[in-house]
Amino acid sequence: MFVLKASPAVMAPILLNHAGNDQNEYIKQHVQVKNPYLDAMEEDILYHFSLSTKTHNLPEMFGDIKFVCVGGSANRMKAFAQFIHQELELPGIPEEVRDICEGTDRYCMYKVGPVLSVSHGMGVPSISIMLHELIKLLHHAQCSDVVLIRLGTSGGVGLAPGTVVVTSKAVDYSFRPQFEQVVLGKVITRSTELDEGVANELLQCSAELQSFPTMIGNTMCTHDFYEGQGRLDGALCSFSHEEKLEYLRKAYEAGVRNIEMESTVFAAMCRVCGVKAAVVCVALLNRFDGDQITSPHDVLVEYQQRPQVLVSHFIKKRLGHIV
Amino acid sequence: MFVLKASPAVMAPILLNHAGNDQNEYIKQHVQVKNPYLDAMEEDILYHFSLSTKTHNLPEMFGDIKFVCVGGSANRMKAFAQFIHQELELPGIPEEVRDICEGTDRYCMYKVGPVLSVSHGMGVPSISIMLHELIKLLHHAQCSDVVLIRLGTSGGVGLAPGTVVVTSKAVDYSFRPQFEQVVLGKVITRSTELDEGVANELLQCSAELQSFPTMIGNTMCTHDFYEGQGRLDGALCSFSHEEKLEYLRKAYEAGVRNIEMESTVFAAMCRVCGVKAAVVCVALLNRFDGDQITSPHDVLVEYQQRPQVLVSHFIKKRLGHIV
Repeated sequence: MFVLKASPAVMAPILLNHAGNDQNEYIKQHVQVKNPYLDAMEEDILYHFSLSTKTHNLPEMFGDIKFVCVGGSANRMKAFAQFIHQELELPGIPEEVRDICEGTDRYCMYKVGPVLSVSHGMGVPSISIMLHELIKLLHHAQCSDVVLIRLGTSGGVGLAPGTVVVTSKAVDYSFRPQFEQVVLGKVITRSTELDEGVANELLQCSAELQSFPTMIGNTMCTHDFYEGQGRLDGALCSFSHEEKLEYLRKAYEAGVRNIEMESTVFAAMCRVCGVKAAVVCVALLNRFDGDQITSPHDVLVEYQQRPQVLVSHFIKKRLGHIV
Repeated sequence: MFVLKASPAVMAPILLNHAGNDQNEYIKQHVQVKNPYLDAMEEDILYHFSLSTKTHNLPEMFGDIKFVCVGGSANRMKAFAQFIHQELELPGIPEEVRDICEGTDRYCMYKVGPVLSVSHGMGVPSISIMLHELIKLLHHAQCSDVVLIRLGTSGGVGLAPGTVVVTSKAVDYSFRPQFEQVVLGKVITRSTELDEGVANELLQCSAELQSFPTMIGNTMCTHDFYEGQGRLDGALCSFSHEEKLEYLRKAYEAGVRNIEMESTVFAAMCRVCGVKAAVVCVALLNRFDGDQITSPHDVLVEYQQRPQVLVSHFIKKRLGHIV
């Protein structure tokens, strides 16, 4: 019996065969919590999911999860779950997917075959709470070889509206690929590099689909939608139109192609916990052209489906539904 | 005709009489946006509320608002709207309050007489987006003499669970009363002092109610629920139990009585925009005793009603329903 290290190229067939004793067995990449106290806890209450290790059988409920897709909006993540249900041609009625976190309104969560669809709200703190509890959930459920993908919306930097950006590096307001985390009053810095293999696979999926423009670029993550992103239309604005454009130009020169509000902590936490991760966001507007999102509702709805279509194709390929 | 400056002591009768030409007329405190571009915009789309100055008559819809109550959870803010509807004995059925932001799932918003109840999600970025659009809404609607109150949940520092904390100063992870805002890649600092008069009125309301312990104290605002608050039960934890307690002790010595995730930006933005504001949070647990929220569901539900009961009493007093 030889041991083969997991790589995207060999992952698809392995996902189809979980017998475990065949010659293709390899070292499973378990989701790693980095907390020495966790396994000694008698009960772990995942408070913001309204789940607990005592009241729920997490391995039974979630042990087969291979893809976790997260996004800000609860409605959008429900729609994604229903879409994936159709795409994977699973038994049952897509409209009947049930919110696993119905005991709370902090987040929503849907499981569709090997795919988990979870909402995370807006901003780094909101997604950070969700990720702590999600990573603990995947750990308690003994999940392995999980790919975690954020599907989001963003402002484009020098892109036509509707362009999909797969993040190369998540960068902060100074275009540095790092996330500053406060731990007991001290600031520590974590790397925000994402998985290159998964990003390239996603780009390849888009080439196969030929439905909308997709590119790989850096994504700037801010802690604010208005002043931090250089918008002139917030309740507060202390800079000029020219200063705004200057900042966006600098961002563009640093490789930034879109701006959103969650990618740095998402990349940092996935990296620390050994989870392969990607960020796929559609640009709703080109920030060089304006600040307000003025496209008609139906156009915006179609834009927001693009990351879903792309990630669905990726999942189907990995599962061997598309050769 | 003499002009009388607004103070809490004289506000209640004035709210009862909006004729405007009587001898008690005073300088109305309008909500101030600090953006020179805003009034020149042909349309202002409040994207995350799914409202706009072109499609909605904001002065007609919101012009009479005097109290804006905000909180993280959408369900809780709906429950608060229904509760206030009952308390103010308004016509109609409380259960039929309608979400004004039904076109989006980012936030929910209910109007009940002069009270607006709005959800803001979790964390500084999420409430920051809501506050930009809320302050613009109040400005467009030409509201005046508005009090803005955050009703929240928090972790107590040296307090019995269920204690309500009215925030004196919102402080950051180093216990400084300031909020760091990034503007075009540069960090600026804003003060986070809240209105002392409103805080004292709220404390007085609690004394009148005699229903639960309430105190004034500093509130620490973090950007994370786990590492930033010194929890030992997250997916990541790199410190010891003793180091955690040491940090909480330092916080206590700096006057911190509870920890949540929105107060600094809330205080800072309200202050800049000339809105009197208060933060009223119940402590769900005493962080010296643990990290997980283990109280039974019904106990937690009752705790979460306490800020609502307190703020309802405050509103009724200001409106002259209680003398």
